[in-house]
Amino acid sequence: MTESNGVAYKAGRFLPVEDATIGILDPAFTKADVVFDVVSIWDGNFFRLNDHLDRFYSSCETTRLTLPLSDSEIRNVLAECVSRAGFSRAMAWMLCTRGPFKGGSAFGHPKDCVNQFIAYSIPYYWVIPEEKIDSGAHIWIADTRRAPDVSINQQVKNYNRMDITAAQFEAMDAGADAPVLLSTDGFLTEGPGFNVWIINNKVASTPGTNLLEGVTRKTVFELCQESGIEARTEDLTANDLENAEEAFLSTTGGGVIPVTRVNNRSIGNGAPGITTTALQSLYWNKRAAGWNCVPVSDCLTSLE
Amino acid sequence: MTESNGVAYKAGRFLPVEDATIGILDPAFTKADVVFDVVSIWDGNFFRLNDHLDRFYSSCETTRLTLPLSDSEIRNVLAECVSRAGFSRAMAWMLCTRGPFKGGSAFGHPKDCVNQFIAYSIPYYWVIPEEKIDSGAHIWIADTRRAPDVSINQQVKNYNRMDITAAQFEAMDAGADAPVLLSTDGFLTEGPGFNVWIINNKVASTPGTNLLEGVTRKTVFELCQESGIEARTEDLTANDLENAEEAFLSTTGGGVIPVTRVNNRSIGNGAPGITTTALQSLYWNKRAAGWNCVPVSDCLTSLE
Repeated sequence: MTESNGVAYKAGRFLPVEDATIGILDPAFTKADVVFDVVSIWDGNFFRLNDHLDRFYSSCETTRLTLPLSDSEIRNVLAECVSRAGFSRAMAWMLCTRGPFKGGSAFGHPKDCVNQFIAYSIPYYWVIPEEKIDSGAHIWIADTRRAPDVSINQQVKNYNRMDITAAQFEAMDAGADAPVLLSTDGFLTEGPGFNVWIINNKVASTPGTNLLEGVTRKTVFELCQESGIEARTEDLTANDLENAEEAFLSTTGGGVIPVTRVNNRSIGNGAPGITTTALQSLYWNKRAAGWNCVPVSDCLTSLE
Repeated sequence: MTESNGVAYKAGRFLPVEDATIGILDPAFTKADVVFDVVSIWDGNFFRLNDHLDRFYSSCETTRLTLPLSDSEIRNVLAECVSRAGFSRAMAWMLCTRGPFKGGSAFGHPKDCVNQFIAYSIPYYWVIPEEKIDSGAHIWIADTRRAPDVSINQQVKNYNRMDITAAQFEAMDAGADAPVLLSTDGFLTEGPGFNVWIINNKVASTPGTNLLEGVTRKTVFELCQESGIEARTEDLTANDLENAEEAFLSTTGGGVIPVTRVNNRSIGNGAPGITTTALQSLYWNKRAAGWNCVPVSDCLTSLE
């Protein structure tokens, strides 16, 4: 048996993810008119499925997209995508696209479109190369700025990522692992798939504006509270990150990931920070113990 | 014989446009990592094909995309898409997508992707409802701002259009035909598929920053020169547009289109302006006379 690349759900049926497509005329493509979310599955358990669904529903509401499936149907579809692929560790993506106009018209008010739900599972992935998860990532503060909320509401998880791609070119040209983008106001925002944190004097800080409020970011606030570490949102500059005692990323694609270099300069002594490493261990230990887990198998009910 | 919806070219073959798709995992979709251009065809002639190709090549270069086809191959493919669909009046779209990583890896430096060329023809369309082309459009100055060049380089024709869609909701909720977006600095930029112009005291002005420099915008500069009308780029505010003597749009999807209302307020006496109407007539008369035209049939050569 060959390993599955993943299973997709589209237009009421399941199919291999590599066979799932959208039309080249679809506004989800031509206008990036789509919102999404991604929940991780580890050893057969969704992590914080409710939080991801809540954020997904919020993204839909903000962009005036109406899901054609109910909450319980969506849970079932996500579980089916994971289960049918045979994945124990995976990512489950859920999308809502604007879809075609009612009646087949090519133009009109976007409220008159028939919104579509798409989901798929793919193997679990790390937003930083896996071999750096323990030793620490090299992050690049890019010149390209994150598009501001007045243009593209970054609280909505969206596909408008040309700024991110330009920043990735900058980071990878420089030999770094991933970029972090500043806002047009000059404050740290986020990177591709992660939020960024610094720690100074046992206080953990993360940016609070012009970014997606990550579910793992929320998790870190809880882990800090449990660990007696003060955690807060704060406007942070490039200088704050470069001169932090410790730095780390929070992400569905890897949990808590130490940052040990920023723009070719070591953070602290160049090794993952003590508090960072403690939070990283706590994250994985609590997940292994079933914290905020929902078994995929619990969501499998008949679609009929 | 049923009329064609259009013909697409993808991965070396031609197919009905409605059958042309991209994978849901393709970064062209998930990151809007794609650039494009659109050239119009009227009565069998491309209009300003060289200008559109030059801009397309510039968009590719800026975003570090390498076209897998030569200039002559692209001209031929565009002509084939139009010709095979049997269109006399059409739009020909050309896309370059980032494409998959060499060797099938899921992550890496985006420079290591195999860039793809896609093209298709569809029937000619008007960016403003066709019945308004002569009587004038109602334009809405949206609260949503156009993403700034420091984030998303708007000189590159791109699919990152969540700001445009949000603005379209605003415009259409208000009963207007289309939005125009301000920059984050508060100056007029552009709308979906068009540049915007005002005329005061026989001087035509159009915004100069944070926008796509339209080929029809360039055409209007030439038409103004021919007509003895001064034309210039200028920072323009919402107030400048609302209080202009005349206003119009320039677009591949309709040429010169009068604007007669802005945010529920009449422009001038509420009828298309005299100079605007003269430019509109000149545009279509010169096109009909073959100005800047390349016959589609001239581009049809064997691909073999």
